[in-house]
Amino acid sequence: MLLKDNPIGVFDSGVGGLTVLREIIDALPNESVIYFGDTARCPYGPRDLKEVERFVLEIVDFLSRQGVKMVVIACNTGTAAGLVSAQKEFKNLPIIGVIKPGAQAAFETTKNKKVGVIGTVGTISSSSYHKALLEFDASIEVFAKATPEFVDFVERGEVEGAKIEEVARSYLEPLKAAGIDSLILGCTHYPLLYPVIKKIMGDGVEVISSAKETAREVKNILERKALLRNSSNPVYRFLSTGDPQEFLRLGRLFLGKEITQVEKVILK
Amino acid sequence: MLLKDNPIGVFDSGVGGLTVLREIIDALPNESVIYFGDTARCPYGPRDLKEVERFVLEIVDFLSRQGVKMVVIACNTGTAAGLVSAQKEFKNLPIIGVIKPGAQAAFETTKNKKVGVIGTVGTISSSSYHKALLEFDASIEVFAKATPEFVDFVERGEVEGAKIEEVARSYLEPLKAAGIDSLILGCTHYPLLYPVIKKIMGDGVEVISSAKETAREVKNILERKALLRNSSNPVYRFLSTGDPQEFLRLGRLFLGKEITQVEKVILK
Repeated sequence: MLLKDNPIGVFDSGVGGLTVLREIIDALPNESVIYFGDTARCPYGPRDLKEVERFVLEIVDFLSRQGVKMVVIACNTGTAAGLVSAQKEFKNLPIIGVIKPGAQAAFETTKNKKVGVIGTVGTISSSSYHKALLEFDASIEVFAKATPEFVDFVERGEVEGAKIEEVARSYLEPLKAAGIDSLILGCTHYPLLYPVIKKIMGDGVEVISSAKETAREVKNILERKALLRNSSNPVYRFLSTGDPQEFLRLGRLFLGKEITQVEKVILK
Repeated sequence: MLLKDNPIGVFDSGVGGLTVLREIIDALPNESVIYFGDTARCPYGPRDLKEVERFVLEIVDFLSRQGVKMVVIACNTGTAAGLVSAQKEFKNLPIIGVIKPGAQAAFETTKNKKVGVIGTVGTISSSSYHKALLEFDASIEVFAKATPEFVDFVERGEVEGAKIEEVARSYLEPLKAAGIDSLILGCTHYPLLYPVIKKIMGDGVEVISSAKETAREVKNILERKALLRNSSNPVYRFLSTGDPQEFLRLGRLFLGKEITQVEKVILK
């Protein structure tokens, strides 16, 4: 039974998905959320997709037993590896990922049907955004580029300055030269680099955050299902499979506000 | 070059697509529209899909030469047969159909993941809604039913009364018994039967109009592309390949307001 007052479950391999939570809080300030960071097994990117699929099913199972009213896989690799299986296994739970909302926004935005996508090596090599874009418009030309160093910069908190600009320029100039008019940030870490990326891409390119688009879709879904929470005073719980102190430190960066408590979880 | 002041092109095999136009006018009262009804070759339903694909490409070509800023295939058979080819052939034009917006709304709405779809024999046997629903959630159970007699009732203007209720009941009871909580009206004629269908399905079932959802998507797209028309006094043009008098008479029923002029068009 899905109840209005129950929390939304949001999870990621680590703290990156907190950029999605941030957008959900902005769009839906009344909603309670359980955020689950699988930091003990982070990152998912280099792992076998079958293994990640198993992690996704474990975590959705855990969240469903916490009574969440919907689940957001706030992780690109997790979405690519486990969304379909999770939807099939947990039939009574609405479950969405971050890929389709980002792809749909780019489809709606592009005028010249030339769309760029940046993400980790895992996300880019899975071609998930490419496939999702073609489902909306079969003639969209996709220019995908893995930009793995961005993650390290963000996790160091180095989101501005000459060094990140230089790295960003070398990643992004080929996409700009290809004439894209829309660029999908296909990694939950990248919204923190929005100013640098936007500066390089310029006014002619719309920079699309999958985090923000996913929050829009969460709102649409809760509205349509008549599951919006009416009361204020939402409750946020943060769960982590790894070191809570590390989560606290990094989490603040991604969420944009203080996190006061992290609960350590052992799955099974 | 896509310009704000240019019209939206909307087409259908006949007058059914006027229910989509009606929703577009409601959602976007400033937009000018060219409506094209291919009444000389109506209905598309019983035709070979390859033939319909060719008709779709001809009409999109015609509309693009009229300078439309986007095209809406306001026809379920036309969408199933020609959307992908039209997107591929007319790369500089945003083109959408009616199937994905309806499917997405149902995906967002259903709680028990049991979705019903009604449409013509052609649309139902193409499984287009089924496929589109599974792209959003792989575990949605789809209960599809062809309800061809609805078209005749609507075209006779017989949208209420004991007879249509009896026919509707015999079509819809099995879907109700299957426990669906969302029902897609997968034919442009059916929004006119909304009251009858809603009465039979009851409060527990959300009745989703693909026409309305398509208009929402048109709005999203024009907003995202910064192509919304700012001025008032929109211009509506109605073009028909068949008898303009017949179009005038039936069109009024579907559009919900008077049509004063229909231009006869001969393709090529």
